[in-house]
Amino acid sequence: MIGISNGFDGLIDGTFRALGARDVGGILPHGGTILQTRRSERFFKPEHRQAARHQAQTAGIDALVVIGGEGSMRGAHALAGLGMRVMVVPASIDNDMVGTDVSIGVDTALNTIVDAVDKLRDTASSHTRCFLVETMGRGCGYLAVVAGVVCGAEMVLVPEIESSVSEVLDAIRDAHRRGKSNAIIIVAEGAGTRIGELLKAIEETDVGFHARASRLGHIQRGGSPTAFDRMLAARLGRKAVDALLAGESDALVGLSGRTIETVPVRDIIDRQREPSLEYFEMVKVLAR
Amino acid sequence: MIGISNGFDGLIDGTFRALGARDVGGILPHGGTILQTRRSERFFKPEHRQAARHQAQTAGIDALVVIGGEGSMRGAHALAGLGMRVMVVPASIDNDMVGTDVSIGVDTALNTIVDAVDKLRDTASSHTRCFLVETMGRGCGYLAVVAGVVCGAEMVLVPEIESSVSEVLDAIRDAHRRGKSNAIIIVAEGAGTRIGELLKAIEETDVGFHARASRLGHIQRGGSPTAFDRMLAARLGRKAVDALLAGESDALVGLSGRTIETVPVRDIIDRQREPSLEYFEMVKVLAR
Amino acid sequence: MIGISNGFDGLIDGTFRALGARDVGGILPHGGTILQTRRSERFFKPEHRQAARHQAQTAGIDALVVIGGEGSMRGAHALAGLGMRVMVVPASIDNDMVGTDVSIGVDTALNTIVDAVDKLRDTASSHTRCFLVETMGRGCGYLAVVAGVVCGAEMVLVPEIESSVSEVLDAIRDAHRRGKSNAIIIVAEGAGTRIGELLKAIEETDVGFHARASRLGHIQRGGSPTAFDRMLAARLGRKAVDALLAGESDALVGLSGRTIETVPVRDIIDRQREPSLEYFEMVKVLAR
Amino acid sequence: MIGISNGFDGLIDGTFRALGARDVGGILPHGGTILQTRRSERFFKPEHRQAARHQAQTAGIDALVVIGGEGSMRGAHALAGLGMRVMVVPASIDNDMVGTDVSIGVDTALNTIVDAVDKLRDTASSHTRCFLVETMGRGCGYLAVVAGVVCGAEMVLVPEIESSVSEVLDAIRDAHRRGKSNAIIIVAEGAGTRIGELLKAIEETDVGFHARASRLGHIQRGGSPTAFDRMLAARLGRKAVDALLAGESDALVGLSGRTIETVPVRDIIDRQREPSLEYFEMVKVLAR
Repeated sequence: MIGISNGFDGLIDGTFRALGARDVGGILPHGGTILQTRRSERFFKPEHRQAARHQAQTAGIDALVVIGGEGSMRGAHALAGLGMRVMVVPASIDNDMVGTDVSIGVDTALNTIVDAVDKLRDTASSHTRCFLVETMGRGCGYLAVVAGVVCGAEMVLVPEIESSVSEVLDAIRDAHRRGKSNAIIIVAEGAGTRIGELLKAIEETDVGFHARASRLGHIQRGGSPTAFDRMLAARLGRKAVDALLAGESDALVGLSGRTIETVPVRDIIDRQREPSLEYFEMVKVLAR
Repeated sequence: MIGISNGFDGLIDGTFRALGARDVGGILPHGGTILQTRRSERFFKPEHRQAARHQAQTAGIDALVVIGGEGSMRGAHALAGLGMRVMVVPASIDNDMVGTDVSIGVDTALNTIVDAVDKLRDTASSHTRCFLVETMGRGCGYLAVVAGVVCGAEMVLVPEIESSVSEVLDAIRDAHRRGKSNAIIIVAEGAGTRIGELLKAIEETDVGFHARASRLGHIQRGGSPTAFDRMLAARLGRKAVDALLAGESDALVGLSGRTIETVPVRDIIDRQREPSLEYFEMVKVLAR
Repeated sequence: MIGISNGFDGLIDGTFRALGARDVGGILPHGGTILQTRRSERFFKPEHRQAARHQAQTAGIDALVVIGGEGSMRGAHALAGLGMRVMVVPASIDNDMVGTDVSIGVDTALNTIVDAVDKLRDTASSHTRCFLVETMGRGCGYLAVVAGVVCGAEMVLVPEIESSVSEVLDAIRDAHRRGKSNAIIIVAEGAGTRIGELLKAIEETDVGFHARASRLGHIQRGGSPTAFDRMLAARLGRKAVDALLAGESDALVGLSGRTIETVPVRDIIDRQREPSLEYFEMVKVLAR
Repeated sequence: MIGISNGFDGLIDGTFRALGARDVGGILPHGGTILQTRRSERFFKPEHRQAARHQAQTAGIDALVVIGGEGSMRGAHALAGLGMRVMVVPASIDNDMVGTDVSIGVDTALNTIVDAVDKLRDTASSHTRCFLVETMGRGCGYLAVVAGVVCGAEMVLVPEIESSVSEVLDAIRDAHRRGKSNAIIIVAEGAGTRIGELLKAIEETDVGFHARASRLGHIQRGGSPTAFDRMLAARLGRKAVDALLAGESDALVGLSGRTIETVPVRDIIDRQREPSLEYFEMVKVLAR
């Protein structure tokens, strides 16, 4: 087993090192990666992809397990086009990948959000306030919408569904009218309406609560992995190796209900995840 | 909506109270139950079950949502036999119920175990020791076997699979031989071999490590619910109400892959959950 | 014992309620306040302060325990001037109050910061990045400077000590030169240089790391209190009552080394806390 | 700087390694020790102590910083008697050392206890139960008595103060009578009465609650250090080095109120810490 540092840049540059069983001793409880990673600009160019392919061949790497999100999958797919055997393990807190119910990191990020919002609610309740909480997720509202359900939010704003500022004002006003001591609005970073705009609108209208904004930011990307994420990673990792040994390539290993299955990358590469309308509605039902 | 305190005892005694939306304000982050619960000895007797049925009728309760484990399901089933409309929401950290992939509380318990074992490993690694960790689960090894995978244990002992003391000694000896600084053995409380017995066997043999035992106990039953558990509870609760409104009764709402489905109680009441052989083997693979 | 809701506004309006021992049952693990609080604009005016004084008298309140920060202390002092017996319990995560080594909430806030920065460092290390982390504290750098020591920051920017942008750039550059995989800069919200300005400067210079900013915000104000904060609150609360019973008034109860002591408010009301130069220097020493 | 592995055994065996600034990179958030430690039986014998002294001299070690508890201090003192320059940094969750208000690890252990008891209380409240919780501390009741205050216990049993079983039964009965939904009793591991005995007594008497026991065990010894512990360790470590550079030896660096001071080991080596009677009484006051 060989570990490649610095993502695709490391593949181009040949920053390889042997990885034995003892080299991963003690890393289980830690967030992040011991291999280091980075976004590779060079890898977008064919000549660098060829160089990467060549480096791998020279080092005797006969199959590649790529752990990452959308961009990593595209990179892996390009290498498969150059004849390299690859398997993608979906890891991205955005949960924007098709082909798996959930990616590695999502559950840990959600628990960090829950913990943060529970803390914000302490202040919100004590001061009878509304909090606008921005979660990550790029173009995907999954993190926000699940956060909305599990944090007891009044409403969720996501990129996939249009919501007006006045709907948000109504939701907060309703919470106040129903006697709530606080109101939480979850806003996905990619949502059409931004927290700054909402904050301004709330201050200009009488909705019963004063508002504060909190951008959770990068704390969502770290932390000791939860039980769910460790189990998912173990299962996906094992399947990735088994699938490669069984001759499969250019596929993603994903969670499909109860089982881990492989999906050809070509079937998912240009598809976008469906928004979770069921959960979006559930937030409104639970807020009552 | 009416809340019934003290479990089936409360149904017998009529300790009911109206539950409005504001009555559950602020309880989301808390473990336990605001309704109080207890094991009812009286409910095993037909006359008390009749009394409970009567109390419910008098109070105008036309359907009952029972949240609990095996015993609660049996109680609900008995009430259904008396003509009461019931729906069971599986909640038990033991995860011993058939009809749902996972019950409410399991994910929170697993994360408490992960947190505890991560702490124990700090000491184990610093002192080059082996830790025997007892997890809950009654007759079911689910909690232990998943804990084994996600905590990086050398081996897991569960009620459903026989393991000898010498297999455990071998697993620890192997860990030492492979250069590990510590070894973790997870023992389900219902396993054939108990941690006391193992501790004695290890002290009498030279396996490379000294051993300590830790019975995690009741801390596994409390704590702020995880994101997964909050989402599962929201989905199951909603489905329970919808199913009752749709005329269903004497069923359990369970997670089946991605979806929430109802299962007739009669189909699951005397069945035992299959042990997770896949995870049991995975512990050994990952331990290498 | 009578509880007053909504801070000084509640004193003006007479929103009082009897508080017995059972009324605080179960609140120990929760952040925030069950009494609700808010900033009172009215209380700045003499006529409203007189009204508050009158309300207290009418309700038979013979002594007032005021829990809060600088503003609360000033309010309490004003009431003392009207003949009311008052005792101040310092509670403010800013730790800007003179007369106590530390206020209630500071230790909890620091542990939230530690937890957040540990998570940010996971990302920082994996991507070889620098993180600029903004902590709260208003005009006081205590939180930031202690965070700097306990989070292993390269440098801390506080309101009390001037630091130039080029000093920060040097600190980051040095970290990179010494082979660190990440760099953390803690910036107090009241510091002369803001994180936005720093971010821009880093992007324009080659310091070895790319930078990201994280404003921790209101999560620092909530959460289950730590052991230290619970103990401090218990000791301060007890002393406040004892001091009032002993005839003292217009004083603050504070931690002074090992003991809890009362300090006349007039001795501290216009003084500013000295910055912790020892810790400020310690950050630089430990960063090496 | 040289790191010595395996405690005094490593000093005897010369298991030394150079420790540079980068060697401790990333260890800040982790419990345990990267140096490994163990109890040395050999070090009790004069010839091995001489060997250790010789090893240190040969390796050019001119001063020794010993981090540990009572036993480590005695070992360091013995080495000082052989002409070695030593400084002791108190680290022990038991907090049984004289010469410092608090040792490294105590605050982290207390927060682990708080977290565990908060979880146990969830179950206790839901089932109207009493929990007997055993904390660590060997012959010292500090951990238990502080836990008693900060966890809202009914009573605390410690080694230094005799308490009868009937006092415990009375405390639980009183809690029930006053309408509490649960009762927590903290029992130090070294207390005269053990939890098994108490459990039996409670089951044989009608105190209103059923009881469960929880031995928290070794989870108290691990975990990511709290802000307080990180700060204390930084200050003590710095002072240890400064004191050695200033020519001091055979002393302990300790927290004394606000400041870090050195205390000659001979002044504290046979003294026992006074029990915290103030906190012991405070538990009873707060329990009402």
